[in-house]
Amino acid sequence: MTDPTDAETACFEAGIKFGSLYHQFAGTPLSLESAASIEAAMEESIENQPHCESVTVSVQRDALEAELAASSADYTELTGRFLEVEIVVDYEGQTVVTRMAMEDGYPLMRLESVHDRE
Amino acid sequence: MTDPTDAETACFEAGIKFGSLYHQFAGTPLSLESAASIEAAMEESIENQPHCESVTVSVQRDALEAELAASSADYTELTGRFLEVEIVVDYEGQTVVTRMAMEDGYPLMRLESVHDRE
Amino acid sequence: MTDPTDAETACFEAGIKFGSLYHQFAGTPLSLESAASIEAAMEESIENQPHCESVTVSVQRDALEAELAASSADYTELTGRFLEVEIVVDYEGQTVVTRMAMEDGYPLMRLESVHDRE
Amino acid sequence: MTDPTDAETACFEAGIKFGSLYHQFAGTPLSLESAASIEAAMEESIENQPHCESVTVSVQRDALEAELAASSADYTELTGRFLEVEIVVDYEGQTVVTRMAMEDGYPLMRLESVHDRE
Repeated sequence: MTDPTDAETACFEAGIKFGSLYHQFAGTPLSLESAASIEAAMEESIENQPHCESVTVSVQRDALEAELAASSADYTELTGRFLEVEIVVDYEGQTVVTRMAMEDGYPLMRLESVHDRE
Repeated sequence: MTDPTDAETACFEAGIKFGSLYHQFAGTPLSLESAASIEAAMEESIENQPHCESVTVSVQRDALEAELAASSADYTELTGRFLEVEIVVDYEGQTVVTRMAMEDGYPLMRLESVHDRE
Repeated sequence: MTDPTDAETACFEAGIKFGSLYHQFAGTPLSLESAASIEAAMEESIENQPHCESVTVSVQRDALEAELAASSADYTELTGRFLEVEIVVDYEGQTVVTRMAMEDGYPLMRLESVHDRE
Repeated sequence: MTDPTDAETACFEAGIKFGSLYHQFAGTPLSLESAASIEAAMEESIENQPHCESVTVSVQRDALEAELAASSADYTELTGRFLEVEIVVDYEGQTVVTRMAMEDGYPLMRLESVHDRE
């Protein structure tokens, strides 16, 4: 057993941001009209968290439009299949890039890269 | 026992919007910088719900600033003491106005008026 | 315009409980093994709210089992299509019974009855 | 830039669990009577997530009792100051132990240890 490295802590911090973002906002009523405002709120609220460099949220309008067209409703609930997200965390000079996108029908959160800035 | 009236159903619908708004967004990381975007997202997402005429959310900057000044943090969590909310529901011609504001240290959701449009 | 009646306020209160329950817990990771504990937590937490007589939550095991069988995952997210809920509110002698169940593929929250106890 | 190690991915996964747990359940109505059921639901629901070995949630009854005694209410909202949490993640033989507890008035999520099982 060893003490966590800065890179490992940076990865832990990046995971916290992803879990927070997803479980805070999953279930929010979502339409094409409200997509832009929820994107902005998700980005700006999670960027408040410590060590969070940037959050980029993109509601997938095509997937949303397809779901709404297939039903009689004019809104649905925010869930992973309407989201692409990139989060960049910096902790003690370690930069971590993480991404969420659909894979095989599931929203997969993935650690893309860990990078020592110096 | 009687069938619910349209006015009663309108009040039920208004309550749903309030409970939804509060429990969807409580806990969101909140700072002075992100206050405007969460206001917009709360308004536009809940306005998607059926029979919802308008939602007006005002993050209380004074209360937020006071809390942040009293701590070492630059953000906190969204909770009722930072919110004033008005929601107007229209159901079958019955207009219901509801409001949430702090009272005796608690965020109180209150039914203000029920109004037959005709 | 008139002041709200006790029955109308009771209906408003019932709506708050429903919106709260749904948006607090939508998105929770859910499996057959964890269904009983989330049912209990939903019931007991919402029963804390004012004027709430009883909350009965039933996770629909058949629907959940069917969804899990159709996918490669062993859990999913809690959403309305796995829920049947009954909430009873009592406000100033007015008893309101409300129910949520699937209708035409949507989770519908419905005001069942408003009843003066005396 | 290098590919993430298994230990780093394990730390990322542990962070996801923490962020999920906190932002799914923050804001839930909480009393001494409902504390046990929310503990169980938090544990069992997050244990559904991939690579999650165990989740242990302890609602701090003393802190909760003190808060309720200081107010006129018989319930409050779940937030970090009522929680101690331990989460153990195992990813490809890397075991990560993480903990949340109050520190200087803030709920701090901390990476305790990263451990190669072999």
